[in-house]
Amino acid sequence: MRDIVIIGHKAKTNGDFSLNDLPGSAGRMDILCRCVSSALFISFGMRRDVNVNLLLLGDPDPGKIIRFEGLDLKYLNPDERSSGSLIQKALQKNAIQQYTHSTPGVWIRRGDLKSMLSEFEGRTLLYLREDGEDLREFAREIRDPIFIMGDHTGVTEEEEEQILNVGAKIISLGPISLHSNHCITLVHNELDRAESERKVSTRGTDLKGDE
Amino acid sequence: MRDIVIIGHKAKTNGDFSLNDLPGSAGRMDILCRCVSSALFISFGMRRDVNVNLLLLGDPDPGKIIRFEGLDLKYLNPDERSSGSLIQKALQKNAIQQYTHSTPGVWIRRGDLKSMLSEFEGRTLLYLREDGEDLREFAREIRDPIFIMGDHTGVTEEEEEQILNVGAKIISLGPISLHSNHCITLVHNELDRAESERKVSTRGTDLKGDE
Repeated sequence: MRDIVIIGHKAKTNGDFSLNDLPGSAGRMDILCRCVSSALFISFGMRRDVNVNLLLLGDPDPGKIIRFEGLDLKYLNPDERSSGSLIQKALQKNAIQQYTHSTPGVWIRRGDLKSMLSEFEGRTLLYLREDGEDLREFAREIRDPIFIMGDHTGVTEEEEEQILNVGAKIISLGPISLHSNHCITLVHNELDRAESERKVSTRGTDLKGDE
Repeated sequence: MRDIVIIGHKAKTNGDFSLNDLPGSAGRMDILCRCVSSALFISFGMRRDVNVNLLLLGDPDPGKIIRFEGLDLKYLNPDERSSGSLIQKALQKNAIQQYTHSTPGVWIRRGDLKSMLSEFEGRTLLYLREDGEDLREFAREIRDPIFIMGDHTGVTEEEEEQILNVGAKIISLGPISLHSNHCITLVHNELDRAESERKVSTRGTDLKGDE
């Protein structure tokens, strides 16, 4: 299981925005939409073992968490409007502290970064920063990671402190600073490669056992 | 310099489509839009050494090439509607065999795959296929590549033959088959890493020379 967390500092927190203007009227919701798509889609299918957690901190009611669960997700296409529309539908629900179901595989609740991080206790938290250790060097050791990122404004000092306080590992992905959705693609690829290598080496061990 | 080529088999070839329905009315133009964005954007800027070449083969007038030149490109934002809008503007121009200027950094001409490939003679052509050699193994040897890909339908047998006939190298990017825009992100990252390593090793040699 992989979880992706994206913090949308300006992302609108009610459904009152236009799908024709996700960057403007919805507070750079286009960024979150691209992240949803990069996190969940592969050729001819969806990553059923991936969840996406969007922390929305914009006006008018900051502190909402929308969760996409790959396992049960329906009605999502790869284009920005499609994820924008599912986000909008979720925001039209009355959000409380517990998750409320919106559409198949999509949930919403009230919450802040701290409460979100507490959901992931015991799992490996990966946090992107330019001075981090190259994920390529240790991807094979990672199980059930949470990958956490900011939007175009990054993360605030306070948020970073909270993230590091719960034991996040600081990672880097290459020499150039990239958009959040591109980072998700790179993390997935690194973990896909690592899982595939693990399978090959396990199969090798099995074969040896049979000999 | 890097060039990205994407073949859009269904992509509409006049400007008569709605930016509110890029997947439907524009013949999966959303795929090409995401490719443009993945090819050109980095954090807080644009890859000025990258060009994107879209080959549009849908109705009503198949065989148009739209070229985005990173060096001069203006008015492009990372969201799908933004690239969709520049594509639409280009399609409203009268396309002839030679490139016609549309907006800053965007050009359009009539052409097919063969005429497009002939533009790139002498450069390294990379073509993605699951049985290809892992790009990670030889990225450091690559200079001025063209990376060529299909859309959600892949490439036809005839197209593949043309691509291989001009000497394309068959590459793979990992164990899972991905969307075209995700592949672009992975190719960029591999080439970014290779360039960065080359710079470091050149600097090492320079320093030695000074000693």
